[in-house]
Amino acid sequence: MRYISFEDEPTISPDDYFMGEALKEARYALEEDEIPIGAIVVYNGRIIGKGHNLTERLNDVSAHAEMQALTAAANLMGGKYLQGCTLYVTMEPCVMCAGASYWFQVSKIVFGAYDNKLGFGRINQKITHPKTIITGGIRETECSQLVKDFFKAKRQGNRL
Amino acid sequence: MRYISFEDEPTISPDDYFMGEALKEARYALEEDEIPIGAIVVYNGRIIGKGHNLTERLNDVSAHAEMQALTAAANLMGGKYLQGCTLYVTMEPCVMCAGASYWFQVSKIVFGAYDNKLGFGRINQKITHPKTIITGGIRETECSQLVKDFFKAKRQGNRL
Repeated sequence: MRYISFEDEPTISPDDYFMGEALKEARYALEEDEIPIGAIVVYNGRIIGKGHNLTERLNDVSAHAEMQALTAAANLMGGKYLQGCTLYVTMEPCVMCAGASYWFQVSKIVFGAYDNKLGFGRINQKITHPKTIITGGIRETECSQLVKDFFKAKRQGNRL
Repeated sequence: MRYISFEDEPTISPDDYFMGEALKEARYALEEDEIPIGAIVVYNGRIIGKGHNLTERLNDVSAHAEMQALTAAANLMGGKYLQGCTLYVTMEPCVMCAGASYWFQVSKIVFGAYDNKLGFGRINQKITHPKTIITGGIRETECSQLVKDFFKAKRQGNRL
């Protein structure tokens, strides 16, 4: 009888794991020719909301991954607020999405790639809820590479 | 034969007129026991989107009047952007809604009552689109009184 040992398996932190789930959502966006950004909302180790960028499909520039994931999570929770919840998103949220997280009172935001141009981090004042904790740079390379490759392919396509 | 003369009628500016339309939307919210905030989007003198606060009915803290009006207008325009459009809203938009107006590239925002606590004006950096012009204080008293009366009634109701 053989036992499988997991001792040599690399350990993965919860943040790395859940960012992987957000990355899956980003890849769904990519399959639909959307800018590949994905988001999930986690409560007590359970995914309660998922979303990916749908700006093209919905023809709605505000249909960001975070907005989908936050409203889906709030629906599932049956309440208005997402206290105790973590929003994982592959790209630093924009001002609109950070502002939405204020209203949902999300307890934690974990994002992948930094967005120095349009990310909410460029705002000098705190625009998220006072209790919201922010962590950036989780699986940053994978998250940013997806978006870079997407735009590179778009540019090359345009040149053909 | 009698002619009706309009010469003695008080003139009303387009901003005052359209804020009146946004106020109608705010009163629809009030009838539904929502915080009475209303918004419309105007293009070439025509209303192309309307919305009022639906946070209670939709159980969604992000269902602000502006988000409804902006997405409705974008749908009607069949395009993503609202260039040449003016957003009229009875209350100074929050950070989320101002952030949304960035993505829609709204040309002008005209709001009624100032919101010193949660309005986007408290942010020192420009978070709307670089080309967006902002005007505040149109029919300010009416716009703010609606919200004040709403909360006063709520407080009195809670005391009974």
